[in-house]
Amino acid sequence: MTANPPPQATPSRTSDDERWMTRALQLAAKGEGSVEPNPMVGCVIVKDGQVVGEGYHAKFGGPHAERAAFASVADKQAIAGATWYVTLEPCCHTGKTPPCTDIILQSAPARVVVAMRDPFPKVDGGGLRLLSAAGIQTDCGILESDAQNLNQPYLIRLQQKRPWVIAKWAMTLDGKIATKERHSQWISGPESRADVHTTRGRCDAVIVGGGTASKDDPTLTARPPGPRIPTRIVISKSGRLKLESKLVQTIDEGPVWLFTAADGNVINALADAGVTICPIPGNSPTEDLQSALIKCGEAGMTNVLVEGGGELLANFFAADLIDECHVYIAPKLVGGTGALGPIGGDGLAKIPSQGQFEYVRFETFGPDLKLVAKRKR
Amino acid sequence: MTANPPPQATPSRTSDDERWMTRALQLAAKGEGSVEPNPMVGCVIVKDGQVVGEGYHAKFGGPHAERAAFASVADKQAIAGATWYVTLEPCCHTGKTPPCTDIILQSAPARVVVAMRDPFPKVDGGGLRLLSAAGIQTDCGILESDAQNLNQPYLIRLQQKRPWVIAKWAMTLDGKIATKERHSQWISGPESRADVHTTRGRCDAVIVGGGTASKDDPTLTARPPGPRIPTRIVISKSGRLKLESKLVQTIDEGPVWLFTAADGNVINALADAGVTICPIPGNSPTEDLQSALIKCGEAGMTNVLVEGGGELLANFFAADLIDECHVYIAPKLVGGTGALGPIGGDGLAKIPSQGQFEYVRFETFGPDLKLVAKRKR
Repeated sequence: MTANPPPQATPSRTSDDERWMTRALQLAAKGEGSVEPNPMVGCVIVKDGQVVGEGYHAKFGGPHAERAAFASVADKQAIAGATWYVTLEPCCHTGKTPPCTDIILQSAPARVVVAMRDPFPKVDGGGLRLLSAAGIQTDCGILESDAQNLNQPYLIRLQQKRPWVIAKWAMTLDGKIATKERHSQWISGPESRADVHTTRGRCDAVIVGGGTASKDDPTLTARPPGPRIPTRIVISKSGRLKLESKLVQTIDEGPVWLFTAADGNVINALADAGVTICPIPGNSPTEDLQSALIKCGEAGMTNVLVEGGGELLANFFAADLIDECHVYIAPKLVGGTGALGPIGGDGLAKIPSQGQFEYVRFETFGPDLKLVAKRKR
Repeated sequence: MTANPPPQATPSRTSDDERWMTRALQLAAKGEGSVEPNPMVGCVIVKDGQVVGEGYHAKFGGPHAERAAFASVADKQAIAGATWYVTLEPCCHTGKTPPCTDIILQSAPARVVVAMRDPFPKVDGGGLRLLSAAGIQTDCGILESDAQNLNQPYLIRLQQKRPWVIAKWAMTLDGKIATKERHSQWISGPESRADVHTTRGRCDAVIVGGGTASKDDPTLTARPPGPRIPTRIVISKSGRLKLESKLVQTIDEGPVWLFTAADGNVINALADAGVTICPIPGNSPTEDLQSALIKCGEAGMTNVLVEGGGELLANFFAADLIDECHVYIAPKLVGGTGALGPIGGDGLAKIPSQGQFEYVRFETFGPDLKLVAKRKR
């Protein structure tokens, strides 16, 4: 029996390292909604205890964080011997832009500090090895957990080939999304609804079930538009989407996909109207969702927002496919044994002893409270 | 037709007044849970822009805020000409202690600033009139709304002859208090449960329905004890409380009341065991609750905590008798159309366009979030 090796000490990790990496992480977060399917990345260049350059990946297709930081340096000759702080391992391959390791090497740094290795197959340690081989001191793992938290959706997509799933609902303080008479309009206030539109504009897709598509006839666009135009997705085994629905009628405002196991004239007519028909097996809701999400992942989607209804959310929950919850709680009571909660279906038999989620943010929007909870890691 | 008189301008109201009154309100709040059925009151004595004395009503039967503030003054001769800031009109009658106006007059102040008039019938403007008549400048209404918020339970008791009703429940992030199989144990964590005990120890009564008393067999004591020993109340038209229940078996740890329309041997046996039997009419849940709360008010109760179950909360809600909600939300999902929400009964037919409540506080307890919402005024 061999003992586990002790955790490897990170050499020369200092509180200064954490300070600059914190700044780099703050910069990285500014790219949210604009860089996907790329990860958010920030970079800070420090010489003699002073920041001499900083930048972040601001837009998909645009310069990476390292190039943005280098571009911000006033005297490019004077930064030889600097330390570079990057929230993700620099890339060493040519994608839409040349390798970031090139620009770092050109600047002749003394040290490169990285929060986390990039699991992207074309990088995956190669960037760090290349820098090391060039004689530059590299340290990886500074604020690693924060960096992982920031890019959870990117990591899920690489690891599970599917987008990060955000489940969203608005409910009353007593947990209802509709009364016993199925009245459900305007649980949350205009400020909360505006925030939902902001979220939509940062996501790659907005997903509803066939019941919601048919009952609420939503448009599912982000109004006003955000950095992304979300694909509007209906998941309905039986193909519940009408030609005259707002979704189909507004097809020029953003793509509409229908995941369905149905076929025939109605489906063909939807396809003719511009709807992308995506077949699902139709054997079980879990399998259908898994296959739908893989398709979303293949299309480069990083974040999808599931807006209901209760049966679709129940299927996502039963398939263990909810990564994050956005819950708007209105300070209203409705009551009623027959009123509807946000997640229908069978549900669990027992209350889990430990929560599957943890809160990461609370915000008020007008009279309402928004809770953001992420799946525990 | 006569026009309404214009609102009376408050003379000499300054930001200094608000500053000292804010301090007095902070002091007042320290008495929460210890002074009831008296109101919470704070007092600050200011001379030449300096605080020379301050105090608050700390315990029922103990000195009022004005006497506590005066007692804290180092040089009692030197405070002639001071300004007294009191969050509630000083009393002018002898209750458990002599009138506060006496001590104020003895100190020969220049001015007395009061946040709100005390509607208690033996005061009700009399304290202010007495001070004015003695030639002291009096100003009433500084931060009046804050003072009213602080003493809402006291005001409800005076105006409606009933205690302030706090409805408490713990639910999952999807609004469930029990699964489809009625499993409900430990939705919230130990930190939240400890906070419930703190709240119990500040309330005059903890109330449950007969179903909860019989199914959960709770003790309903505050553990550890707080400043008050809550009366444990079961409201059950049919008298569902067992002789062998923990409530009855722990009768030495605090009074137990049973509001019931039942009588006969079982009820007599409970009375013999020390349970206080309080008859209710039994014609309608609303009438029963109204009569029960009036009885609580007569007994001097200021705050009662209703802990469920869902049917009792539904009755309180239907009777429009919930003043405040304490909602603990665990970051757990349960799902299930057949799972239980916190408020049963019929519920409303439509979602109200405006919330009946407004949030006043958010706090985390371990992994859980606690929302406190008060009825909108």
